[in-house]
Amino acid sequence: MPAIVSASLSKFGKRQEGLMEIAAEAALPVLRGRWDDVDFVVVSNTYSGEFTSTSGLNTLLTTYLSLDAVPSIRIDNTSGSGGSALLVASSLITSGTARRVLVVGVEKMSTLKTRDVTAVISSLLTPRERATGPSLPSLAALAAKLYMSRYGATREALAQVSVKNHHNGALNPYAHVRKEVTVEEVLSSPLVSDPLRVYEYSPISDGAAALLLVGDDEARSFTDKPVYIRGIGTASMSTSITSRDDLLDLSSVREAGAKAFRRAKAEKVDFAELHDMATVLELVQSEALGLLPRGEAWKYSEEGYTALNGELPLNTSGGLVSKGHPIGASGVAQAVEVFQQLRGEAGQRQVRNPSVGLSLSMAGFGNCSTVTIYGVEP
Amino acid sequence: MPAIVSASLSKFGKRQEGLMEIAAEAALPVLRGRWDDVDFVVVSNTYSGEFTSTSGLNTLLTTYLSLDAVPSIRIDNTSGSGGSALLVASSLITSGTARRVLVVGVEKMSTLKTRDVTAVISSLLTPRERATGPSLPSLAALAAKLYMSRYGATREALAQVSVKNHHNGALNPYAHVRKEVTVEEVLSSPLVSDPLRVYEYSPISDGAAALLLVGDDEARSFTDKPVYIRGIGTASMSTSITSRDDLLDLSSVREAGAKAFRRAKAEKVDFAELHDMATVLELVQSEALGLLPRGEAWKYSEEGYTALNGELPLNTSGGLVSKGHPIGASGVAQAVEVFQQLRGEAGQRQVRNPSVGLSLSMAGFGNCSTVTIYGVEP
Ligand SMILES: [Ca+2]
Repeated sequence: MPAIVSASLSKFGKRQEGLMEIAAEAALPVLRGRWDDVDFVVVSNTYSGEFTSTSGLNTLLTTYLSLDAVPSIRIDNTSGSGGSALLVASSLITSGTARRVLVVGVEKMSTLKTRDVTAVISSLLTPRERATGPSLPSLAALAAKLYMSRYGATREALAQVSVKNHHNGALNPYAHVRKEVTVEEVLSSPLVSDPLRVYEYSPISDGAAALLLVGDDEARSFTDKPVYIRGIGTASMSTSITSRDDLLDLSSVREAGAKAFRRAKAEKVDFAELHDMATVLELVQSEALGLLPRGEAWKYSEEGYTALNGELPLNTSGGLVSKGHPIGASGVAQAVEVFQQLRGEAGQRQVRNPSVGLSLSMAGFGNCSTVTIYGVEP
Repeated sequence: MPAIVSASLSKFGKRQEGLMEIAAEAALPVLRGRWDDVDFVVVSNTYSGEFTSTSGLNTLLTTYLSLDAVPSIRIDNTSGSGGSALLVASSLITSGTARRVLVVGVEKMSTLKTRDVTAVISSLLTPRERATGPSLPSLAALAAKLYMSRYGATREALAQVSVKNHHNGALNPYAHVRKEVTVEEVLSSPLVSDPLRVYEYSPISDGAAALLLVGDDEARSFTDKPVYIRGIGTASMSTSITSRDDLLDLSSVREAGAKAFRRAKAEKVDFAELHDMATVLELVQSEALGLLPRGEAWKYSEEGYTALNGELPLNTSGGLVSKGHPIGASGVAQAVEVFQQLRGEAGQRQVRNPSVGLSLSMAGFGNCSTVTIYGVEP
């Protein structure tokens, strides 16, 4: 399996810069001294057309980065694009199609008003469900209600996930929302979709993430501390929410996780980046992945088990809720966080001596999920 | 290398049906009796957002096709998306990531007026060139002028490419423009961009193409006549047209072709599907690929060398000019044509006993090119 040998982020947030500038901000540190090495570029992006009237983003970007002769593609899987890009980049290397792949995830979303961004993103729902009005935030709110009633989770426990992720994000210089919040502040912040409030959702962010992936055989010629992809699993489920038996059973997450653990020959991980588009999803996902017992993640969260200094730190980067969620960048940014943690380079967010990490990149409301397991050893 | 074991098209043209219906029209014949076999879906599409306000196309499509649990991605490389999708699908199989990949290329373009379609497609140009006005059709016209003046090609010889491709397309039940044209009709058709006229450009089409790709080890359990992918090459060049030394030197085509021939261990092909967004490009590309001598393709075309019954038939399907050019579908549709030809199933378009075929899928004006070489033997 391939290895990540370099990784970087742009600052996440409302940026004045354009799509190319933001992508370059993440890619240039990765490219430094390695322009001639890269033989393929995978761009992870969903909405360059809708948000910035740009198509052909991958070839525009290779030209912008002075990688004119390097072939490229754009991968889209909505909010799960980054995980899919990593899967494809790994396959390109393992199959011998490419040797050194630059992966760049990028999205510029702040060009539109919040309402219009929500409308654009709702275009991933089935036509019938799109017409009847549920947006992804309102589905998350429904999941929160269900989670509380089914498992007896308290409202405060849900809010605690936001408190933890904002704490982590405040320690992340690249995060969009660098601000500690208390349970009280979360619960008195503006209501978005009952019962969830604004601090419990990812903000609308611009941002980019980049990494260089190479074959494991040559990884150590690039760096003393490569981070190996040990296994990737991907799985899907119906896009039609109303046709699902149980809103809390994210079967794509469960199956992608099982595949990834099998391929990685791993039993446990030391920390994980999950897809907390809304905080309740971190709870549901950690259970679906088998990281925490079903129906009990909220207790573990309340007790600090998933905090930076806990047994199983979750979303050390701040997660989507605090770091931000530039659609095409998020899954790649998760890999960047895992890379930094496994190299011991996560600064104030560093977890203690991790050797195995996990990321979950999720399209829509679990429409397609990709789980990647990384290790300091192959 | 993997093999294509089944392939199909939707009717190309101005369709009343929506994006999903058109995609399904191509995919259902490929899926028949094989629903349980498919373990990955690669969707080739560029403009579902711009043309039909749809995102998350890949998961919407798997749900529509009752492939709920099958993971999927969308691949975009503008007009070269189909070739990139084939490259990625092959890599997924060769790397062991997937075993049986359904590739579906689809675009619905007729929702917008011609002027608006051109504006959308121009969004793949560099911002500076986009601002100064050249569209892809006008770049092709410039290339035609240059080709005639440099090589002494006659205006009639250029028109002859359109005559040939319309002849082939008239024999293709799935083609958009099924109509024979004469040189005189081509040269008296409405001017689009001097000197090129309407019959010398691909029309704006809706359409889809689908194929099933599996590992070569199990190909014969699916069909007695698999078509093997013998080699794929991809290469890129600057997206900035004005920064190129020579508008007629499509270096990405040249390099992608050289790589594909090397990987396929092939010296020649029996026929080829090229990317004739404008007819002059068929000439330029056949030279860049080394299929015909530089500066002389127009003579070969005039003498019937590239006709259906010639030595090297080009664009037997009718090419983009007659079959149509639904952006994300085109590259996949080329593979479908090669599949049918190599199996002897191309009906009135059948070339005599071919054993090796080639397709060229090209993004923008050569921004990224992918060449695939196929054979009846692995
Ligand atoms: Ca021949």
